[in-house]
Amino acid sequence: MINSREDVTRMIQSAKVRKGITWTQVADAVGLSKEWTTAACLGQMTFDEQQAKIVGEIFDLPEEALAWLQAVPYKGSLPTAVPTDPLIYRWYEVVNVYGSTIKELIHEEFGDGIMSAIDFSLDIEREEDPKGDRVKVVLSGKFLPYKAY
Amino acid sequence: MINSREDVTRMIQSAKVRKGITWTQVADAVGLSKEWTTAACLGQMTFDEQQAKIVGEIFDLPEEALAWLQAVPYKGSLPTAVPTDPLIYRWYEVVNVYGSTIKELIHEEFGDGIMSAIDFSLDIEREEDPKGDRVKVVLSGKFLPYKAY
Amino acid sequence: MINSREDVTRMIQSAKVRKGITWTQVADAVGLSKEWTTAACLGQMTFDEQQAKIVGEIFDLPEEALAWLQAVPYKGSLPTAVPTDPLIYRWYEVVNVYGSTIKELIHEEFGDGIMSAIDFSLDIEREEDPKGDRVKVVLSGKFLPYKAY
Amino acid sequence: MINSREDVTRMIQSAKVRKGITWTQVADAVGLSKEWTTAACLGQMTFDEQQAKIVGEIFDLPEEALAWLQAVPYKGSLPTAVPTDPLIYRWYEVVNVYGSTIKELIHEEFGDGIMSAIDFSLDIEREEDPKGDRVKVVLSGKFLPYKAY
Amino acid sequence: MINSREDVTRMIQSAKVRKGITWTQVADAVGLSKEWTTAACLGQMTFDEQQAKIVGEIFDLPEEALAWLQAVPYKGSLPTAVPTDPLIYRWYEVVNVYGSTIKELIHEEFGDGIMSAIDFSLDIEREEDPKGDRVKVVLSGKFLPYKAY
Amino acid sequence: MINSREDVTRMIQSAKVRKGITWTQVADAVGLSKEWTTAACLGQMTFDEQQAKIVGEIFDLPEEALAWLQAVPYKGSLPTAVPTDPLIYRWYEVVNVYGSTIKELIHEEFGDGIMSAIDFSLDIEREEDPKGDRVKVVLSGKFLPYKAY
Amino acid sequence: MINSREDVTRMIQSAKVRKGITWTQVADAVGLSKEWTTAACLGQMTFDEQQAKIVGEIFDLPEEALAWLQAVPYKGSLPTAVPTDPLIYRWYEVVNVYGSTIKELIHEEFGDGIMSAIDFSLDIEREEDPKGDRVKVVLSGKFLPYKAY
Amino acid sequence: MINSREDVTRMIQSAKVRKGITWTQVADAVGLSKEWTTAACLGQMTFDEQQAKIVGEIFDLPEEALAWLQAVPYKGSLPTAVPTDPLIYRWYEVVNVYGSTIKELIHEEFGDGIMSAIDFSLDIEREEDPKGDRVKVVLSGKFLPYKAY
Amino acid sequence: MINSREDVTRMIQSAKVRKGITWTQVADAVGLSKEWTTAACLGQMTFDEQQAKIVGEIFDLPEEALAWLQAVPYKGSLPTAVPTDPLIYRWYEVVNVYGSTIKELIHEEFGDGIMSAIDFSLDIEREEDPKGDRVKVVLSGKFLPYKAY
Amino acid sequence: MINSREDVTRMIQSAKVRKGITWTQVADAVGLSKEWTTAACLGQMTFDEQQAKIVGEIFDLPEEALAWLQAVPYKGSLPTAVPTDPLIYRWYEVVNVYGSTIKELIHEEFGDGIMSAIDFSLDIEREEDPKGDRVKVVLSGKFLPYKAY
Repeated sequence: MINSREDVTRMIQSAKVRKGITWTQVADAVGLSKEWTTAACLGQMTFDEQQAKIVGEIFDLPEEALAWLQAVPYKGSLPTAVPTDPLIYRWYEVVNVYGSTIKELIHEEFGDGIMSAIDFSLDIEREEDPKGDRVKVVLSGKFLPYKAY
Repeated sequence: MINSREDVTRMIQSAKVRKGITWTQVADAVGLSKEWTTAACLGQMTFDEQQAKIVGEIFDLPEEALAWLQAVPYKGSLPTAVPTDPLIYRWYEVVNVYGSTIKELIHEEFGDGIMSAIDFSLDIEREEDPKGDRVKVVLSGKFLPYKAY
Repeated sequence: MINSREDVTRMIQSAKVRKGITWTQVADAVGLSKEWTTAACLGQMTFDEQQAKIVGEIFDLPEEALAWLQAVPYKGSLPTAVPTDPLIYRWYEVVNVYGSTIKELIHEEFGDGIMSAIDFSLDIEREEDPKGDRVKVVLSGKFLPYKAY
Repeated sequence: MINSREDVTRMIQSAKVRKGITWTQVADAVGLSKEWTTAACLGQMTFDEQQAKIVGEIFDLPEEALAWLQAVPYKGSLPTAVPTDPLIYRWYEVVNVYGSTIKELIHEEFGDGIMSAIDFSLDIEREEDPKGDRVKVVLSGKFLPYKAY
Repeated sequence: MINSREDVTRMIQSAKVRKGITWTQVADAVGLSKEWTTAACLGQMTFDEQQAKIVGEIFDLPEEALAWLQAVPYKGSLPTAVPTDPLIYRWYEVVNVYGSTIKELIHEEFGDGIMSAIDFSLDIEREEDPKGDRVKVVLSGKFLPYKAY
Repeated sequence: MINSREDVTRMIQSAKVRKGITWTQVADAVGLSKEWTTAACLGQMTFDEQQAKIVGEIFDLPEEALAWLQAVPYKGSLPTAVPTDPLIYRWYEVVNVYGSTIKELIHEEFGDGIMSAIDFSLDIEREEDPKGDRVKVVLSGKFLPYKAY
Repeated sequence: MINSREDVTRMIQSAKVRKGITWTQVADAVGLSKEWTTAACLGQMTFDEQQAKIVGEIFDLPEEALAWLQAVPYKGSLPTAVPTDPLIYRWYEVVNVYGSTIKELIHEEFGDGIMSAIDFSLDIEREEDPKGDRVKVVLSGKFLPYKAY
Repeated sequence: MINSREDVTRMIQSAKVRKGITWTQVADAVGLSKEWTTAACLGQMTFDEQQAKIVGEIFDLPEEALAWLQAVPYKGSLPTAVPTDPLIYRWYEVVNVYGSTIKELIHEEFGDGIMSAIDFSLDIEREEDPKGDRVKVVLSGKFLPYKAY
Repeated sequence: MINSREDVTRMIQSAKVRKGITWTQVADAVGLSKEWTTAACLGQMTFDEQQAKIVGEIFDLPEEALAWLQAVPYKGSLPTAVPTDPLIYRWYEVVNVYGSTIKELIHEEFGDGIMSAIDFSLDIEREEDPKGDRVKVVLSGKFLPYKAY
Repeated sequence: MINSREDVTRMIQSAKVRKGITWTQVADAVGLSKEWTTAACLGQMTFDEQQAKIVGEIFDLPEEALAWLQAVPYKGSLPTAVPTDPLIYRWYEVVNVYGSTIKELIHEEFGDGIMSAIDFSLDIEREEDPKGDRVKVVLSGKFLPYKAY
C-alpha cells in the first residue's frame, strides 16, 4: 500500500537509477519543460491524468501510484532548513548574501510587493565559456503588488 | 568610532532614505552593475579605494567609513536562517521546492559539482507582460566539477 | 539619526501609548481600513507621501521618519519563530491544527496553487453572541494556480 | 496492529487517493461541515461512535481503527515548526506579518484576552471575482478575557 | 522616552531590589492576589487606571509608565524556549514528563478540549511538612470543549 | 523482540484503545493514584514486579514487556521542545507567562532553591462550576534550598 | 541605575580583570569554598547581607549592587544551548558521551530518581601527575528517589 | 544484517532487560571499571577482541556483532541537544549553572587550556549520609594547555 | 529494492565491519587517494563505472547498487548541525575558534573570495613525534575571488 | 569601562581598519606565527604581559585593555552555529562532507581517540598554481587515544 507521495517519489528515484533514465527523456515524453517535469517527478508538482500515465509507464509504477501523482503534494524537497548539499547550499547562500540586494532592487523598480514563486518558471541551461562553462539559470516570476485597502 | 561594517551599512541605509538616493544612481556613479553595487553597499562585497570614495561622497560618510568599505566584510545579509520577509522568503521557497530539481538537472548536464556562488553574477530586470509585469532574474555561475584525486 | 524602520515603529508605539491614540482613529485619518493602517504603522506596509504626512502628524514624528514610512520595510512582526504571546499563538495553533485541512480543502476546490498573502485583505470585527461575544476574522486572498510550463 | 492515530490517518489518506473520494462527500455522509470533518479525518478532532462508523465504511477501515477515531488525538498536523509547503506557509506568513496587527486590534476592541482556537470554527469558500477567483476564509472564535483575581 | 512594556518591567524590578519591596506588599496595596499582581508587574497582565497609579507610586514610576501598565503587553516572560533557570526548568520538566499523563486524564474526565490558560488562576502556598516544607501550587482553569460544527 | 520502553508504551496505548480500558481502572487495579499510574504506563515511571504483573494482565503484554516495565525509562513524553498539542501547549504557556511570577513568589516565601519535580505529586480533578466546569490541578513538590558550602 | 544581576556580574568581571583579583582571594574573604563563591559572583547564587558587603568592598561595587547580590538571580551562565568555549564544551561532551552511562549506573545503585543539582557541591583541584597534571573534579549530590503515590 | 553500532546497542539493552544482567556483572567479567564498560556497551567506546567476545557471550550476541563492538563508534548517546530525561538534565544544568565557574577556576589554577574529555576517567559511587545517601562522582581529566606557536 | 544512496552506504559499512576491510585496501584497488575513496564509499562522491565495479566486488554489493554509486549523491555525512562525535566535533571547534582567523588571513593574502571546497583535496597522515604522534592534515583548495561586475 | 574581551576585540578590529595594519605586521612584532597572533587578537587566545604590551601599542589600546588581553577569553568566534559567511561556510562544509571520512581514516591509522584541537597548530599559505593559486592549510594536532580504565 502506498501511504504518501514520498513513497512514489522514492519509487521514481529508484527506477530512474536502476534503468538509467534521464529527466530530459521524461520531459520529452510528457511534452513539458525538463524543470517542471523533474519537480513534478520529485513530488513538488501535480500531474494530470494523461501525464501521470506516461510517467507511470516510464518508471513502471503500480496503478495506485498514478492516483498519487495526480494528488496535490505537501511540497518542500529538502531534509533540513539550511541545506547540507553543496550544490543546493550555494543557492541558499545566494539568498543569504544577495537577499537584501534582490529585495532593494525589486522594490526600487516595482514598489512594495513580491516576485511570485507560484506564477513562476525556471530555466536551466549550459552557457559555454572558454574559461569554463557556466550554469545559466533564468527565473521569471510575476510581480505581485501589495495594495492598501 | 565605527566598530564594524554593519555600522557603515546602517549609515548608508539611513542616508539613502533620508536623501532619497536610488541604488541605480549609486551604480551609475560607481560604474558597475546595480546588483553588485547594492550588495556592496549592503555590506556583502568589498569596494576598492576609488569606489569607496565615490560611495562615501554620495552618502556623506565619515573618512573612517571609507576604510571599512575596503575591508572584506563578514557576509550574510539576513537576520534569521529562514527569512521572514515575504519577498526574500519566496526565494527561500524556490530553493526548498525546486532545490532537488536544480540539483538533478545540473548534475544531468554537467556531472558532479556545483554552480559557483563566487564566480557568479546576478541580473534583475522588468519583463513587460500584458497579464502583469514579471521580474526576470538571470543567475550565471561557473560550473565547478568535483574531481577524484 | 533614524537607522531603520523599527526605530520609527518604536516611536509610533511609544507615542500611541503616551497620547492614548487608537488605531481606528489613525485609520479614519488616513482613510483606509484599520487592518492595513495598523499593519503599516507597525512596520509591515509602505505608506505613500500623503499618508506618511498624516501619520507623522498624529504621532509627532520627526521629518526624517516620514521618508522611512515610505520606504519598503523588511517585514515580519514577531520576535520568535513560534510566537510566545497567547493571542498570537492561538493563530499559530490554528495553522498547526488546521493547516493540513485548509490545504486539502483549497486544493479540492481550486486544484494545485495557493491562497495569496499579497493580493490579500484582512477584516476583524466583533460578532455579538449571547454566550459571549466572538471575534470574527475574514481573510480574502486571490487563488494563484501553479501551471505546468 | 494499529499503534497510533497517525496510522489511521495514513490509512484514510491512502484510501482517499486510491478511491478518489472527496472531503465534501465525507462531510455530507457525516452530516457536519467539510472543515471539521476533514480536520477530524486528518487526526485533529475526535469522532463519536456513529461518525466513526460512517468514516470507517467510506475508507474501508478495519474494526480496530474505529476505536482510534474516537480517542482524543495528539494534535498538530505539520512536520516542521515553520511549514515548508507554500500554501500552508502563506498562512504562517499572515501570522508573521499581521500578527501584531491582529493583536492590537482585538485588544483595542475587546481588551486583554484571546480569540479562542477551541470554541472556534473555520469556513472556507470560493469568492468569484472577474480578476481571478479568491479564497475567502472566515474564522470565528469566542473572545476569552483575562480577568484579575 | 519609554519604548516598550519591558522598559517598565525593568524599572519595576530595579526599584523592587533597590527599595526592598515584596510582591505581597504590592498585592496588598493593589487588593488582588499576589500571583496576578506579580505577573502584571512583570509585564504579563494589564492594570486598570487605579491599579496602575498604585503600582506607580510604590515603584516611583514616571507618569509615562502608567499608560504602559494599562496597555496590553506582548506576553512571554522567559528568554529561551527551554528555560535555563533551575526553578523554572522544573516546571518545564513537569510538562515534559507528565504532559501526556495530564492530557490523557483530562480527556478521560472531560472529553476532547483543553484546560484554559486564560480563564485561569494560580495559587502558590507553603505546605508545612516535617520532612521538609513543600510548595503547593493550585492551578484552576475552565474546561473548554472542542465541538463539531 | 522488544527494544525499548517505547515499544511497551505503544503496546499499552494500542491495547487501551482496542479494549476500551480507562486509566482509572488501571490505577484502581494497581492501587495507586491515577496520575502516577498513567505516567508509569506512558513510560515515565518505574513499576515494581507486582505492579508490572497487574499492568501486563490488563493490557495482555508479553512476558518480556514486564521486565521493561521494571527498568528505569529514559523520560520525556513529548515529541517536540515546544509542544504542538493545544492541551499540552496551554501548560507550556503557563510556564512561559507565569514562569517569572512563580520564581519570584517561591523565592519570596522560601529563599533561593527550587520546587522539586522528583519529590513531587500531581492531582487532577473536576471542579464543578455553574459557569462551566473547571480542571483543578494541585502540584505539590518539596522545597529544596541551595546552600552555600 | 542597575537593571539586572547581569549588570552586577559585568561590574565584578570588569573589576576582577582591572584589579587582578583571584577568585580564591574572594572565597577566603567570604569564608566559603572557591566554587560556590565564584558561582555566586558570576550571578548563579545568592549572597547574604554580610557576604554581599565583603564582595562589594573587594570589587568596589556601588551600594545599589549589594541589594542585587542578595536577590535570587535568573540562573544559567552560558550564551548558547551547546557551549562554544572548548573548556566548557568538554563538559557538555561528557554529558553527551557518558550521559546514558551515568543514568544506568545511578539507577543500578539507587533505583529510579536523580542526583540533585541543588543539594549539591562541586570541588575542583589539581591532581599532580608525572605524565601531566590532571584536573580532578568531585561532584556530590543527594540522591532523590521517585516514589509512587 | 547489522547496519550500525546502534543495532548492537539495542541488542545489548534488550538482552540486559530480558535476562536481568547488571552492568557491574559485565564489568567484572570484562575486568574493567563499570563506568568504561557501561559506556562501551552503550556504543560509546571500542572493545578489543577479547572483551568483545566476553560481552558477546553475556548478551548472546551474534558473531557479526562482535566485529561491530571492535569498530570505533560514532559517539553521542543522547537523542536531543538539551536532554529531556531528568537525571541527565541535572548534569546539563550543572554545566549551565556552574560552567563559567568551572572555566574560571581551572584557568586560575592552570592557565589557558582545557580539561581533557579523552584522557579522562569517571567514577560513580554511593556516599552514605544520614540525611539521605549521596551520589559522588569523581571526574579526572588531564589538563591540556594551549600554547603559542 | 534500493531506495537511496544511503542504503548503499549502509551496505558498504556493514560489509566493511563484517569482512574486516580497510579503506586503504579499497583505495589501492580503486587506484585513488584513501581520502577521496573513503568519502565516495560513505556517499559523498560519485564513482565512475569502472570504480563502482571494483567497489561492488570488494563489498559484495548487488548489481543495482553499482548504478547508485554512479549517481550524484545528496551530500552531507553528519546527523546533526553541531556534530556530537568528539573527533568530528574537534574539527567543528577549529572552525568556531579559528574561523575568523582563517578568514582574516586568507583575505589579507588573497583579497575577497573563498578557498574552494570543490576544487579541493584533503590529505591525512601520521606525523611521528616523541611527545606523542600527531595527525597532520593538509587541505588544499583553489582560491576563488569575488569580482565586481 | 571595558566589560568583556569582546570590547577589546572590537577596539582592535576598529583600529586595524582605521590604521591599515596587517596581521602579519602584528605577528612580526609579537614574534609568533600570524595564525596564533590573529586568533589571539580576535579574542580566542591569551597573551602574556609582554605580548599584550606590544599589541596594546600597535592598536593604541587603553591600559585597562592590556589586562583583558591576559585574561583567558570565552572562546568561539562565529555568530551562528552554521556560519553564513561563504569563506567560513566552506570550512563547515568540509567538516560536513568529509567529517565521516576524516573520522574513519584517523581511526584506521590510530585507533579510537581524537586529533587534539588544543595541542594544535594551524598554518595557512599561498600555493602558486598556473591554473589559479591555491590556499594550502596545514593542521597538526596531537593524537589523543581513549583508553580503557
